[in-house]
Amino acid sequence: MIKKRRFGSFSAAAVVLLLAVSARLASSADEGMWTFDNPPLKQLKEKYGFVPTQEWLDHLRLSSVRFMDGGSGSFISPKGLILTNHHVAMGQLQKMSTAEHDYVATGFYARTPKEEIPCPDLEINVLVSMEDVTSRVKAAVKEGMSDADALKARRSEIAAIEKESLDKTGLRSNVVELYHGGEYWLYRYKKYTEVRLVMAPERQAAYFGGDYDNFTYPRYDLDMAFFRAYENGKPVQTKNYLRWNPAGLGEGDLVFVSGNPGSTDRLYTHARLEFQRDLYYPLRLKFIDRYLQALRQYAARGKEEQRRALGRIFGLENSKKALTGEYQGLLDERLMAKRKAAEDEFRALVAANSSWHAATGDAWESIAQALEKNRRDYRQRFFRRLVSSYTGIAGTIVRLVAEVKKPDAERLPGFHESELAELKFNLLSPAPIHKDMEEALLAASLRWALDELGPDDPFLKIALAGEAPETVARKIVQETRLDDVKFRKALIDGGEKAVQKSTDPAIELMRRLDPMMRESEKWVRENIDSVLSSASEKIAQARFAVYGKDISPDATFTLRLSYGKAIGYPMNGTIAPYKTTLYGLFDRALSFGNTGDFALPQRFWDRRDRLDLSTPVNFVSTCDIIGGNSGSPVVNTKGELVGLIFDGNIESLVGRFVYDEEKNRAVSVHCAYMLEALLKLYDAEALAAEIMSPESDK
Amino acid sequence: MIKKRRFGSFSAAAVVLLLAVSARLASSADEGMWTFDNPPLKQLKEKYGFVPTQEWLDHLRLSSVRFMDGGSGSFISPKGLILTNHHVAMGQLQKMSTAEHDYVATGFYARTPKEEIPCPDLEINVLVSMEDVTSRVKAAVKEGMSDADALKARRSEIAAIEKESLDKTGLRSNVVELYHGGEYWLYRYKKYTEVRLVMAPERQAAYFGGDYDNFTYPRYDLDMAFFRAYENGKPVQTKNYLRWNPAGLGEGDLVFVSGNPGSTDRLYTHARLEFQRDLYYPLRLKFIDRYLQALRQYAARGKEEQRRALGRIFGLENSKKALTGEYQGLLDERLMAKRKAAEDEFRALVAANSSWHAATGDAWESIAQALEKNRRDYRQRFFRRLVSSYTGIAGTIVRLVAEVKKPDAERLPGFHESELAELKFNLLSPAPIHKDMEEALLAASLRWALDELGPDDPFLKIALAGEAPETVARKIVQETRLDDVKFRKALIDGGEKAVQKSTDPAIELMRRLDPMMRESEKWVRENIDSVLSSASEKIAQARFAVYGKDISPDATFTLRLSYGKAIGYPMNGTIAPYKTTLYGLFDRALSFGNTGDFALPQRFWDRRDRLDLSTPVNFVSTCDIIGGNSGSPVVNTKGELVGLIFDGNIESLVGRFVYDEEKNRAVSVHCAYMLEALLKLYDAEALAAEIMSPESDK
Repeated sequence: MIKKRRFGSFSAAAVVLLLAVSARLASSADEGMWTFDNPPLKQLKEKYGFVPTQEWLDHLRLSSVRFMDGGSGSFISPKGLILTNHHVAMGQLQKMSTAEHDYVATGFYARTPKEEIPCPDLEINVLVSMEDVTSRVKAAVKEGMSDADALKARRSEIAAIEKESLDKTGLRSNVVELYHGGEYWLYRYKKYTEVRLVMAPERQAAYFGGDYDNFTYPRYDLDMAFFRAYENGKPVQTKNYLRWNPAGLGEGDLVFVSGNPGSTDRLYTHARLEFQRDLYYPLRLKFIDRYLQALRQYAARGKEEQRRALGRIFGLENSKKALTGEYQGLLDERLMAKRKAAEDEFRALVAANSSWHAATGDAWESIAQALEKNRRDYRQRFFRRLVSSYTGIAGTIVRLVAEVKKPDAERLPGFHESELAELKFNLLSPAPIHKDMEEALLAASLRWALDELGPDDPFLKIALAGEAPETVARKIVQETRLDDVKFRKALIDGGEKAVQKSTDPAIELMRRLDPMMRESEKWVRENIDSVLSSASEKIAQARFAVYGKDISPDATFTLRLSYGKAIGYPMNGTIAPYKTTLYGLFDRALSFGNTGDFALPQRFWDRRDRLDLSTPVNFVSTCDIIGGNSGSPVVNTKGELVGLIFDGNIESLVGRFVYDEEKNRAVSVHCAYMLEALLKLYDAEALAAEIMSPESDK
Repeated sequence: MIKKRRFGSFSAAAVVLLLAVSARLASSADEGMWTFDNPPLKQLKEKYGFVPTQEWLDHLRLSSVRFMDGGSGSFISPKGLILTNHHVAMGQLQKMSTAEHDYVATGFYARTPKEEIPCPDLEINVLVSMEDVTSRVKAAVKEGMSDADALKARRSEIAAIEKESLDKTGLRSNVVELYHGGEYWLYRYKKYTEVRLVMAPERQAAYFGGDYDNFTYPRYDLDMAFFRAYENGKPVQTKNYLRWNPAGLGEGDLVFVSGNPGSTDRLYTHARLEFQRDLYYPLRLKFIDRYLQALRQYAARGKEEQRRALGRIFGLENSKKALTGEYQGLLDERLMAKRKAAEDEFRALVAANSSWHAATGDAWESIAQALEKNRRDYRQRFFRRLVSSYTGIAGTIVRLVAEVKKPDAERLPGFHESELAELKFNLLSPAPIHKDMEEALLAASLRWALDELGPDDPFLKIALAGEAPETVARKIVQETRLDDVKFRKALIDGGEKAVQKSTDPAIELMRRLDPMMRESEKWVRENIDSVLSSASEKIAQARFAVYGKDISPDATFTLRLSYGKAIGYPMNGTIAPYKTTLYGLFDRALSFGNTGDFALPQRFWDRRDRLDLSTPVNFVSTCDIIGGNSGSPVVNTKGELVGLIFDGNIESLVGRFVYDEEKNRAVSVHCAYMLEALLKLYDAEALAAEIMSPESDK
């Protein structure tokens, strides 16, 4: 699965926003996650003899959507119908489900619009415009400013630009940093927060093969889900939507992916990769293991507990597998040597030109030194982290009421005027919180912080105040009133005064922790982030000077265009085909005795003889994608939908650092399978009709 | 494919019979290719709670057969019916085929005994007795003998034992060296040379997936063929044969493999592995590449040429893939370090015991020094090698007539009395020789010898005598009369005199080359082989002293028993199931567009609806096997046939050096698939009836 990964927990520690730096990798082959302002027209023309028109590009962009909880999708009918992955929909499905109605397990289909189920807290975005604001952001930094002041100045300017745009247009407005400071763009989004579920198959069909088959290929997953965007209680009229091509595609066909890749580290300096290898990955994997252990213990209590924990277990297993693959890449000496060689070449070219050299200075050295500093106490800062919805909500409220009192320019990231709508949408989500699970996880996270940091760590001295983790967690979870959305709203509306007075134990805890966490974050901002930010910007300028804009920026969870061909690849001693068929789905189920993660829903067996078993199920392409691209449409040169991205193969995991066209593959659901399933397995005639004849008014 | 690999060409260079030496590897898990005199009873009891009786073991041994052209098989009816792999039968199928009747392409089924086709030169063996002759062989070596004299003495004694046994019993008698000189056993075989083909499917079904899928899994091959052994024109009455279990086996079941693994290098010293890594593998792979290139050029001439070259191309591609996998193992520093550590531990234990130390002396050092010497000119000796049936036959005849005049004890290996029957059987084979292919290959092999050695190499000075490779090849191939079996027989019968007088250009060439090749081989025997032989024997004794007989000897293309369970394994990011099904066969065909190596014979499509697609096709087990095991029966604890070994997975290739139970898997055809195919695809009711009701007399 390639859903964008998020930590999924409130980070009490500063999340070190390492602004990454550049090392040029020979941009070859089908590599690249291109911004729509700089599509790879030259590469497409040279390699495929195809040049998309501006109209083609605009149509694809405006048909594409971003799921703010970490995925991508597309409009596929003029009535706001949206296609994405089941695993992107998973969070909403879980929030809609109860012990009585488990839509994750049973699937769901709304035969009529009335049956569609509202999502509790889903925000969907369409990128409607892009504006280059690089010079304005850069002009905010004055000659002679310290790195820390420069960072502040840039962030203030960005907040101002976003606020102005929001006020002027009413659109979600975000300034996106591309090429690690090489460019800044103002992206404006049409935003939908009224979204309803139309159809989702059983998870067993969507996620057939489970964690075993995740990030691998050949594959046989029906990883699809359908939503509909509404405005004021009515389906949105979408002028731009993708037409469904039921025949799909042929081997070798040129295809495009339009989606929101989360992040890549291809332009990181070598020092940064070493930091990731030595500290970040080992700690993150350790943290995930502990988190998973706690969740599995909780899930073992019973069937309902298992249902409640399922979504998070999935997310963590997914992260674990992806991170493990990435980590292997960093441990691979050949990969690291390749990156080092590319960086050395780039640095030599810069050094050989006196004006480039003067502008770039000792940027690489600055980064290496800042990271050296960051190694100190990094582990401690990393483990000052609580896993709990309550402390997450409480921590955000405590900060929010303090930050909103400041001028916009001086606020912490995340609390600027332009960001408040999203923040409040999340804070006031009516999604269920399960007290028993919260207690188990909060206790566990305090316990492992204690194991890692010892009782004398200032964070734990405050958090535990001498008590046992289990006691603290019990009190907070039992006594907090934050389950109640109205209570949260009252605190926010009451402002700093209400929060200061509050005796809610979650609020109290986060109030006590806030000063030390602010201090710690400030240290990181002023000593690490700011140095990286200035140095990265210099390196980005040098890269433009040396190499131009022939490479795409690292992924930023904003809209990108990838291209490639549908072809197989060498795999484990043989070759993997470009597509799989329904025969293979039944083979894999039976070869594992139709049990566990390889058990097919009963309807597949009951209706097997109705199915055309030669129907293509999944296919691979060389399109360059990563987590966050889940749910992205795959289109052909006519702009028709031929597939639905849902994963990368195991060989693609090192793609975070290096793209390898020989083996890196994006995995998609084939349009033919989705249609075959809707018609022959799910009796979803109305939905199929809307997809196939979108203009007919039924 | 795991057919035993042979060089497939006359080696003008001495094939250095390196008697390998021991380094103990922790014998764990399901490892081991056990001799039937020392079955792993303790391991089976401890791990599986199953102890086979002597009767069970005898029955399995006597039901097992060895194919002298490099494979294994088993009797499966009382009327001499034999089951083996299609790729083991391939050589005979090719020799039986003509441009008009290509049984490799079309398959074959004899509806009645009359239709069965006699094999031109197939010898099949059944191991009827085993006798420990270690003390007699060792007694032949007298105190104070040089290594060279000791080697001669051992070989003379072995020849004498074999001759005595042959004279006394009339049975094929071979003394087998086990544990690299630790033990010598006299194996007596019942031999069958009158064998007929009963049934073989099309190669496209047997070898579905071709070289791509070779040595990989999941797999979908019908790699079976049926022969019948005759004596005096009548089917052999076989008391011992395996009963067919149509249900096959379940996941986790304990199974056994009885077959003839060709060779392993698990007890080699570390110095020996380094020699293999540095010299043998790179040269062998280079040689194979050139050979393949020449064959493909020849095959490109036309359809009939393609048919003629097919068998050799298959053999070479198979070798290339296997050797490449093995070579990767030697290049893997962790694997080499593991082997080194095991050897160091063993040597330390020997050194710590004064009597062991005295007996073993500097054996490891002797081996290292001999190999150091062997590195000199090894490349030159390696490339003094011609690829031609004519020079192969001529070279053997030239030697034969000289050797038979000597007392048996003084002859070169391969020419002892006990070996002459097999030698003549092969020399007088009526199998077709294709002049055009012979010429192309002989010219090519002279050409690449010239490239490698230069025109002044003594071998080439004799072979070319100043002419171009193509001219020499043309003359020999056009003028030789060795196609004629009677001509060969006349030369052999005419003895040294006839051969000396012969003006046949192939005989003339080999007569001229023989003295220098004898000299070269003698040097290797006296300077390398003899040292390795004495030192290896000492190490073998030390190993018995330190570790007992809890590990099995390296493979020697003699009958061995392996055991294990039918379970999947971690593969390329996911898990491979223990079995595959017919659904998967159709999936893989369609996912590659039913073309090339992935095209199924038309009958599969025509009769698809008759097939039960859930039928198991292939399965894997942890049984420890290697090339030569192809065609081995897989039996359950009742001794019933449940499968047919045909390959190892890609992860098993390093099994030549180290067995890894986690990933090393033997791949078998499932009995259910063979039966389903015979009945529903090949209309082979009579054959199926004989298999399923072997006692009924139809």
